[in-house]
Amino acid sequence: MKVSKRGAVPPFYVMEVMKAAARREAEGKDVLHLEVGQPSTQAPKGVIEAATTALREERLGYTDALGMPELRTRIARHYRDYYGVRVPAERIAVTTGSSGAFLLSFLACMDAGDRLALAEPGYPAYRNILTSLDVEAVGVPVGPETRFQPTPEILDGVPGRLDALLVATPANPTGTMLGADDLRALIAWCDGRETRLIVDEIYHGITYHGRAVTAAALSDRVIVINSFSKYFSMTGWRLGWMVVPQDLHRSVECLAQNHFISPPAHSQRAAIAAFDCAEELEANVARYRANREVLLRELPKAGFDRLAPADGAFYIYADVAGLTNDSAEFCKRMLAETGVAATPGIDFDPPRGHRYVRFSFAGSTEEMEEAAERLKKWVG
Amino acid sequence: MKVSKRGAVPPFYVMEVMKAAARREAEGKDVLHLEVGQPSTQAPKGVIEAATTALREERLGYTDALGMPELRTRIARHYRDYYGVRVPAERIAVTTGSSGAFLLSFLACMDAGDRLALAEPGYPAYRNILTSLDVEAVGVPVGPETRFQPTPEILDGVPGRLDALLVATPANPTGTMLGADDLRALIAWCDGRETRLIVDEIYHGITYHGRAVTAAALSDRVIVINSFSKYFSMTGWRLGWMVVPQDLHRSVECLAQNHFISPPAHSQRAAIAAFDCAEELEANVARYRANREVLLRELPKAGFDRLAPADGAFYIYADVAGLTNDSAEFCKRMLAETGVAATPGIDFDPPRGHRYVRFSFAGSTEEMEEAAERLKKWVG
Repeated sequence: MKVSKRGAVPPFYVMEVMKAAARREAEGKDVLHLEVGQPSTQAPKGVIEAATTALREERLGYTDALGMPELRTRIARHYRDYYGVRVPAERIAVTTGSSGAFLLSFLACMDAGDRLALAEPGYPAYRNILTSLDVEAVGVPVGPETRFQPTPEILDGVPGRLDALLVATPANPTGTMLGADDLRALIAWCDGRETRLIVDEIYHGITYHGRAVTAAALSDRVIVINSFSKYFSMTGWRLGWMVVPQDLHRSVECLAQNHFISPPAHSQRAAIAAFDCAEELEANVARYRANREVLLRELPKAGFDRLAPADGAFYIYADVAGLTNDSAEFCKRMLAETGVAATPGIDFDPPRGHRYVRFSFAGSTEEMEEAAERLKKWVG
Repeated sequence: MKVSKRGAVPPFYVMEVMKAAARREAEGKDVLHLEVGQPSTQAPKGVIEAATTALREERLGYTDALGMPELRTRIARHYRDYYGVRVPAERIAVTTGSSGAFLLSFLACMDAGDRLALAEPGYPAYRNILTSLDVEAVGVPVGPETRFQPTPEILDGVPGRLDALLVATPANPTGTMLGADDLRALIAWCDGRETRLIVDEIYHGITYHGRAVTAAALSDRVIVINSFSKYFSMTGWRLGWMVVPQDLHRSVECLAQNHFISPPAHSQRAAIAAFDCAEELEANVARYRANREVLLRELPKAGFDRLAPADGAFYIYADVAGLTNDSAEFCKRMLAETGVAATPGIDFDPPRGHRYVRFSFAGSTEEMEEAAERLKKWVG
């Protein structure tokens, strides 16, 4: 009986690491979780309270496909308050996680056979979602020379037409960011070629050298994608949003009706409160900052001395070519021998990831310190 | 700049009805909501309590892509308790609503250009999701002769190969059901042709002549889709599930990782309690039953005398050819002149829906009685 070709997307290798970590824990051994891509914290208290009240007082049925008007208005206000940019609430589409926003974006602007360029290394689900939708994901190799971000010059060297370009700032797994000038250059490059630009801003708020620039401040033709999962620490709540260009609004709305009906209602009600929880959320960022300093200081002493800049997000992408030529095997051995779980680069960059490892520092500072100590002993 | 063709899916006409209803309410006039396809009730108390506890005690991060093991096990037990059939928990995939289950099913077994047959009338999102994925939705016209369900004889008459068949029992908008023999005949027809069978069982539990038969009891090659939205009254929680055939398990898991990461965590935790809320949920069904009786008794007196059987779900599909040849215009006028909102059949059956209207009886019995009174006066 029919099994589709497009459904044969590869699994995440990090899942294998997580399974091995779970086995290790079941055997009573400890694991330091530097493999997970999510905050170790709960949602902020204000969000929990708002959700609890909603559970008591509301019916929590379907909402508008593009989200509760109050939440869309609150997100629009966030653009004004945080970035100083005016984005009308009508342009905000609340989505079921940024995952939902990727599906809607890709379907709204890409037909089967179209080509979308993305940085390698990058978030693996981009490529896998695109493949499942018969869109060609054109991997653009990037390295430390351009802080792991594509540039107009690099894009000029990509053969064939590009119907869209997807960039992330801060990026996963490298943490590198695009400044206003970088974004402007990419916007101009795309505008000149009628190439649709999609900017993943889901790690905004988690930055270490000032605020990130939103592409929504620079162009109203760009699709901007954001999420409540990272800065707002609401992963399991499955809520994100997009800023939608005018020419895609109707498609996105109709696709959302059909594919999702609506995002989760209690998550939406609670998320309205998330923007008023700055104190707690900034304390999370302060912890990430401390964790980052520990790893940037200690990892080189353990032989991990070629690290991506980590301007934002909670990842350090380490070039481990001096230590191994098989990062999957390396991560397996590291976990078995030290209890430190990390993600092999092959998840993010199939051709070159065998010589990279991603360390996540979303956990506690004690975990980072202990991991650094063990790795120093291990590699030593 | 590129806007995709496949993103140009049509909106639901019911949205127009709902907007007109909202305008009417904003003018201070009342509306009887017989257009909405969701329970008017909250989730049961046990679910609210479980969610409240989870908010207080748990981190609510990502879960396994196929759902929390406890919930998968609880759903498997439901198959044993309710249907008397053994379905291993490993075959259960928890999804982000049945909407998520449709996406995963279609991607796992249909490539671009493949053909899937579905009953007309039927749930409009089936067709629109399929179109957005470049799968051809082959509408199979069905009518009162076969209780609005496809049969092997009807399918034999469909030209061209069919890679899959999707049926719903109870169906939306007609409420008609497939018995064990009907299902067995469709399974045999599909097995004989290597055609994948997908059975939408999201209205199970809401039936008026005994329990529905699950296709999972008759074949382990069928994809079964279910939801917490209808019987369990948890629409806004966005949670559903599938029973996955062995040969699709790996695809569904990898697609779920990439497209959803995981279903909402608090919804999952709360849904475990849903199966222990039978008393409250059966009271909802008793209300639907009373509502159904009101409409089946009174609608014919208002001229709506050709009604689909409504074996289950909370819909009555009325042939209004004697009253209009334009159900969209008819519903608009009915709303304006009586305050009764209903859904034009064109949402469910583009070629023939202009002579049908769907009445939903998910609301209160008082609403049904009042609606019947007004319609009797109006048509009279």
